[in-house]
Amino acid sequence: MTKFAVIEDKRGKRIFVEVMPGRVLHTHRGILKHDDIARVLDGETDGTVVSHLGEEFEVLKPRMVDLLMNMQRRSQIIYPKDAAYILLILGIENGSRVIEAGAGSGRMTTYLAWAVADKGKVYSYEIREDMLQVARDVVKSAGYSETVEFFVHNIANGFYHNEVDALFLDLKEPWNYFEQAYNALKKGGRLATLVPTANQVIKILDLSKPLFKGIEVFEILLREYKPISERLRPKDTMVGHTGYIVSARK
Amino acid sequence: MTKFAVIEDKRGKRIFVEVMPGRVLHTHRGILKHDDIARVLDGETDGTVVSHLGEEFEVLKPRMVDLLMNMQRRSQIIYPKDAAYILLILGIENGSRVIEAGAGSGRMTTYLAWAVADKGKVYSYEIREDMLQVARDVVKSAGYSETVEFFVHNIANGFYHNEVDALFLDLKEPWNYFEQAYNALKKGGRLATLVPTANQVIKILDLSKPLFKGIEVFEILLREYKPISERLRPKDTMVGHTGYIVSARK
Amino acid sequence: MTKFAVIEDKRGKRIFVEVMPGRVLHTHRGILKHDDIARVLDGETDGTVVSHLGEEFEVLKPRMVDLLMNMQRRSQIIYPKDAAYILLILGIENGSRVIEAGAGSGRMTTYLAWAVADKGKVYSYEIREDMLQVARDVVKSAGYSETVEFFVHNIANGFYHNEVDALFLDLKEPWNYFEQAYNALKKGGRLATLVPTANQVIKILDLSKPLFKGIEVFEILLREYKPISERLRPKDTMVGHTGYIVSARK
Amino acid sequence: MTKFAVIEDKRGKRIFVEVMPGRVLHTHRGILKHDDIARVLDGETDGTVVSHLGEEFEVLKPRMVDLLMNMQRRSQIIYPKDAAYILLILGIENGSRVIEAGAGSGRMTTYLAWAVADKGKVYSYEIREDMLQVARDVVKSAGYSETVEFFVHNIANGFYHNEVDALFLDLKEPWNYFEQAYNALKKGGRLATLVPTANQVIKILDLSKPLFKGIEVFEILLREYKPISERLRPKDTMVGHTGYIVSARK
Repeated sequence: MTKFAVIEDKRGKRIFVEVMPGRVLHTHRGILKHDDIARVLDGETDGTVVSHLGEEFEVLKPRMVDLLMNMQRRSQIIYPKDAAYILLILGIENGSRVIEAGAGSGRMTTYLAWAVADKGKVYSYEIREDMLQVARDVVKSAGYSETVEFFVHNIANGFYHNEVDALFLDLKEPWNYFEQAYNALKKGGRLATLVPTANQVIKILDLSKPLFKGIEVFEILLREYKPISERLRPKDTMVGHTGYIVSARK
Repeated sequence: MTKFAVIEDKRGKRIFVEVMPGRVLHTHRGILKHDDIARVLDGETDGTVVSHLGEEFEVLKPRMVDLLMNMQRRSQIIYPKDAAYILLILGIENGSRVIEAGAGSGRMTTYLAWAVADKGKVYSYEIREDMLQVARDVVKSAGYSETVEFFVHNIANGFYHNEVDALFLDLKEPWNYFEQAYNALKKGGRLATLVPTANQVIKILDLSKPLFKGIEVFEILLREYKPISERLRPKDTMVGHTGYIVSARK
Repeated sequence: MTKFAVIEDKRGKRIFVEVMPGRVLHTHRGILKHDDIARVLDGETDGTVVSHLGEEFEVLKPRMVDLLMNMQRRSQIIYPKDAAYILLILGIENGSRVIEAGAGSGRMTTYLAWAVADKGKVYSYEIREDMLQVARDVVKSAGYSETVEFFVHNIANGFYHNEVDALFLDLKEPWNYFEQAYNALKKGGRLATLVPTANQVIKILDLSKPLFKGIEVFEILLREYKPISERLRPKDTMVGHTGYIVSARK
Repeated sequence: MTKFAVIEDKRGKRIFVEVMPGRVLHTHRGILKHDDIARVLDGETDGTVVSHLGEEFEVLKPRMVDLLMNMQRRSQIIYPKDAAYILLILGIENGSRVIEAGAGSGRMTTYLAWAVADKGKVYSYEIREDMLQVARDVVKSAGYSETVEFFVHNIANGFYHNEVDALFLDLKEPWNYFEQAYNALKKGGRLATLVPTANQVIKILDLSKPLFKGIEVFEILLREYKPISERLRPKDTMVGHTGYIVSARK
């Protein structure tokens, strides 16, 4: 299985590394051997590696958020600020059964798995077999293969599961699948979706009304500050927009 | 054990109810019997109750977020937007061991328990025995009594636990306990705190430097929209501030 | 002409007063005579008045923003944060000729007059004669009667003026008047509008395309902080939304 | 006097140009002659120029905001969103007398001049003669030379003017000059300052208390949207921070 690491130099600069046998990493402070990094991850040596220029780097096991924000992006990612809030408003917990459609980059799949593991299940639907490989890799790297089941399936024909606790629609036109979503959810179960445009929110609000209740629309903004005690201030630029979260209840 | 419900009228207006035998609830649409609500929660009748005026209300089991935002407030609450993000950046998961100090209103205790249950543990420290009763009630109501252990203890003397995966300081002057926090954390373990003022952030940045690395400061803003498809727009007022999240690594 | 004052007690609490001969003002710190306040405004006595309980209040001449935010509201107000930015992006200055439709509460009329006075002109159109009285009062109270000309007119039939430097549409369905606006503007002249909903922005974007260039959409958020040096932090609540600013060029 | 233009291609892409005799401008759509642009600005030809590849560009006279955001930056600029709001809260208008210190890049000088022209005056103080050249150029380019008077002077020794209506301090340590500012202002006159860090705000709040009243702290956030009717959404990135506005009254 692929290993990942975050290495950090003395000034706090971090690099995300997909560790591969025999490879080397070129940094501004010299060359590092992937094999040295792997030995730290495996616990064989202590927590640092040294470049050929003598610079010491700390080797850190990536958190789930580090992994999900830094792994190869072949598809839209989902930001932790949004994912975290969605998990809470879906009302899920360890043991919950959740449907996701589509699997996409596997990022949200992983967040959902984190919330329901180890007793719960994420049923992740994807229409394209080729997309699924990326999602599978991401979920596996995060250690949640046992919690997630993938299905290559056109959900226009309905979901294989029902009475699920929650359902996350990660699709361009989620309104096309509201009936299928309704049928798969248990009474009181929550639906959530994340869409980039106001036009999509308007269409969701319009078309969810006949089936769903308790509809809510949110946006989460993350403001990062420069961590300097003498000059505390927000960073010069920030992510201006990721998406609108829409949530409803059967 | 106390039961809680959210009841919702036909127009979507919700009321949070602490259900007590024999009591009645006065609403704009007539009087409801708590015992009727209890029967729905227990699954004895279907999902609605009817007021003495014939108005039907849906009875919903509260999600954790509903419970934590609506239960009696004897202390500062923590908002889901902040709690959710803190859980992710702490890098915890089912099975993690986490320290919290102080227990406060038990809200963050519950969020931490949600993230690490059912194999993990939250060790929640509180200096005041009387405060602890509130926290215990909240944790119990949310169903996490088995995941949380409370300790009445002055943490100036250090924590009872060590090698923990993460530590959350919910104190006015968290900098007074950085050494104790450092000693309790495992290498690479994460510390987080949530403070209302910029002055506290400045002090935290200043005093955490000798011990901690990877210090980050965040603010999470939640923007709610009116869920009306013909007139999509943010709500007129929003929560302007809850707190600054500061995170660091041993 | 009606006089206005802002009075401030020792603790910084402010009250906006429409000063009327013979009247009294009841405050938490005693009763004040309007005539005493008037004497301060007229410069006959120094800057304070004293209540019947002996409490001293400072008397301040209101700024334009104080006046516009506090005068009787018979219609939607416009916030300084939005008005100020609109003035700059319209590209106007002392001497510019600007059309406004409709006059509404006269708030934006006054801001426009402030920007183009004393050599410029604001031509303010309103379909309802009765609305105009409010706008006239507001403009007069702010001292801009000479800069503003009001017209009771249905702008569906076009504006009386042309070759104007800028045009502000304060209407529910501004898109119905884009052709009239286009005809009234000079080449390169700017159009701006402020609308509360995303649906309106979408319609404006859609229908302004054939006529206008350089279309931009903005939102201005104002965050207020508690001015306490020991505990600097944003206020607990903030205005979540006023409107979307849309600007374009002929 | 230097001429400036904004040229815009068919797709709406804009370039800010400092027009110089004999020069050429290289664009993705061919080469343009500055002299052709100058002729449009002078009104000798109509509003477009054509590149050597036959591409047509519209030539626009820059608004003040275009000029101030695009002219050569040898110093910190001030954003329109902040400048506009400061002008309103200072309570100034055509005819007001305003002090500014320091002159800096001349951006705020120009905004102040815009607000008080043509009957008012901006007295702009700067300790460094060399900085002043930049400010003078900016003010002149915007057409406000007659409204602004510059002074090379160390304001630690006090200002030359008094009884001014408002005063803007654009300095790293504004608190060092609060007494001088107080002496220069008329009773009820407003002071404003714009500082990047929370530490500075804290110091200003702390040290302004003995002299000033009505202290307020603001932050203005500008959110830009993509102007596409089918996919309305905020832009991906936004300016995360410019500064905190602090305002007070003598």
